[in-house]
Amino acid sequence: MQRFSADVYRERLARAAARTGEAGMDGIVVSTGPDLRYLIGSRADTFERLTALIIPQSGTPRLVVARLELASLAESAVSELGIEIADWVDGQDPYTLALEALPGSRIAVSDTMPALHVIPLAERTGRTPELATTVLRELRMIKDPAEIKALRAAGAAIDRVHARMGEWLTPGRTEQEVADDIREAIVAEGHTGAEFIIVGSGPNGADPHHEFSDRIIERGDIVVIDIGGPVEPGYNSDSTRTYCFTEPPADISDAYAVLERAQRAAVEAARPGVSAESVDAAARDILVEHGLGDRFIHRTGHGIGLSVHEEPYIVGGNTITLRPGMAFSVEPGVYFPGRWGARIEDIVVITDDGCEPVNTRPHGLVTL
Amino acid sequence: MQRFSADVYRERLARAAARTGEAGMDGIVVSTGPDLRYLIGSRADTFERLTALIIPQSGTPRLVVARLELASLAESAVSELGIEIADWVDGQDPYTLALEALPGSRIAVSDTMPALHVIPLAERTGRTPELATTVLRELRMIKDPAEIKALRAAGAAIDRVHARMGEWLTPGRTEQEVADDIREAIVAEGHTGAEFIIVGSGPNGADPHHEFSDRIIERGDIVVIDIGGPVEPGYNSDSTRTYCFTEPPADISDAYAVLERAQRAAVEAARPGVSAESVDAAARDILVEHGLGDRFIHRTGHGIGLSVHEEPYIVGGNTITLRPGMAFSVEPGVYFPGRWGARIEDIVVITDDGCEPVNTRPHGLVTL
Repeated sequence: MQRFSADVYRERLARAAARTGEAGMDGIVVSTGPDLRYLIGSRADTFERLTALIIPQSGTPRLVVARLELASLAESAVSELGIEIADWVDGQDPYTLALEALPGSRIAVSDTMPALHVIPLAERTGRTPELATTVLRELRMIKDPAEIKALRAAGAAIDRVHARMGEWLTPGRTEQEVADDIREAIVAEGHTGAEFIIVGSGPNGADPHHEFSDRIIERGDIVVIDIGGPVEPGYNSDSTRTYCFTEPPADISDAYAVLERAQRAAVEAARPGVSAESVDAAARDILVEHGLGDRFIHRTGHGIGLSVHEEPYIVGGNTITLRPGMAFSVEPGVYFPGRWGARIEDIVVITDDGCEPVNTRPHGLVTL
Repeated sequence: MQRFSADVYRERLARAAARTGEAGMDGIVVSTGPDLRYLIGSRADTFERLTALIIPQSGTPRLVVARLELASLAESAVSELGIEIADWVDGQDPYTLALEALPGSRIAVSDTMPALHVIPLAERTGRTPELATTVLRELRMIKDPAEIKALRAAGAAIDRVHARMGEWLTPGRTEQEVADDIREAIVAEGHTGAEFIIVGSGPNGADPHHEFSDRIIERGDIVVIDIGGPVEPGYNSDSTRTYCFTEPPADISDAYAVLERAQRAAVEAARPGVSAESVDAAARDILVEHGLGDRFIHRTGHGIGLSVHEEPYIVGGNTITLRPGMAFSVEPGVYFPGRWGARIEDIVVITDDGCEPVNTRPHGLVTL
């Protein structure tokens, strides 16, 4: 299933238009990316040729698209949604086509729209657009049952990859070789592709955003494996587990045990009515208490759905209140530069009285 | 070679600063993407966490980067360029860090910067930024000898893939199967990956932006193969040839012969001192003259380098004057919806008295 039925998108469009009006805006301009996929089920991807869905606060939405990109809409729900198609050819001005569909100049643009298009729109309206996130955030953050089902399927798929890690992750192989096998398995287990693969062995595990290298994995290494990708209709998995091959030294075991407690505490803290930052604090407090506060150098998590990273961000300063249907990662880590690192990551969905992790692999350091 | 020596980037930075001043701007803010790679050799890729190079019109450039992304700069030239690193952690405001490095609020931003970052910068400066393309276009459009060498290497690599097309492109296979083999060959012949693969067989060839499908290729099909990807240090190939398996009917042969003439005319028209649109017209005029004008539904070409599509665009309305070092595609096509399509594409580099094609495969319809 590449997309949901047209009814799903019809309702989303209506809600987006209603919120646009409530926000006092004339309309929103959504270029290619996850917002467009959310609203009409299109994964069209253009850069310099503007493709944009224009949603006025009332009236018929318009899709501005280059004529030679029209075929890219075939898989979307656009033909069933009563959207007016305004196609253009090289040399025409697509920004005028976009703004004509709106009753005024107070517009918002999707957060992935490149400056290449933002600036011409600003020039033609005479004012800086706002971010459409203010309108779309609420819609995209609260997942409906079909989306939650998709996130569960993605979680189960990446769990199956982690369950097979011993097939590929062995001392003597390079991180790159392991990553190549993981990439194949990610697809074999039901993803449309690998969106990211981190194989952080030994000292490379201390860099949270290391990808993989030609380093040969050693028997004494701690290895961070952080992997994920989209499962149709486009919802992402993202799960981290930490592996080893021999009994680790006591200082590593001890720090890992604290990390495990911190991750559990954050999952237990995740429930409706609390703030995003309180979930971050739940993990951070435990690490600080055990002298590991300065080893945890990133936020506790990020929302997930059609994008791997989206709102809500689980970070100090984010006072947004968690509500049922929100989905995000809980992934504290500890990093010892030059030596080792560890991270434990599950995706959770807020329920009526707590949260449901979609990843269910054991949390302990996995000895292969 | 993943990047050039630091001296190359030092000169580019100096020229970018000088042009920023000449354009009357206080500075430019360059987020991740090809401009950042051009200026400091970094292929860092962040979305919601701002990574940005700030180039003031005079003084020391600053790189704003999340602390956990610092390691992603290791491969870049940044440590050799006297750039000040301003790192930040989740919860801090990176936009203030960026704007502090500038003497005033008249800024320009790179064209790939997402609205997510453009809008906060606009809010803090109180004015809509301009596009840094006005500063960087000139630099990036005119390729230096090392870049031209890289484009030649990329052209030779994709020519080797086209030369092997008979290994994979046969009736009875699906477009997808052929595309999978081409993807492997693109890497085997020296690319770091495939950036795009079009296998447009029969009626699918009539959609210029078709990618590939599960359609089974038939003996009577005309097949458009448009492929390319980056070769280290990041310069792209892009070449199209059109294939068949049997003698095509006369109407197809005739139209193809006109297309071949049109493509040759555009290559012959490409020289210093003429406008970009005149090259488009050279191809278009011949197609129009033979009643095929309405079959050529896109521009004649696009600049190429670190991006597959960049300036100069070879399109009606673009009056920019071609100069030595500019590199772009010459790729007219003809499209007969529901039946067939054809396109011939070479990358050319403007020389002192004409242009040099970096692709050298024969232009005729290739019978396999």
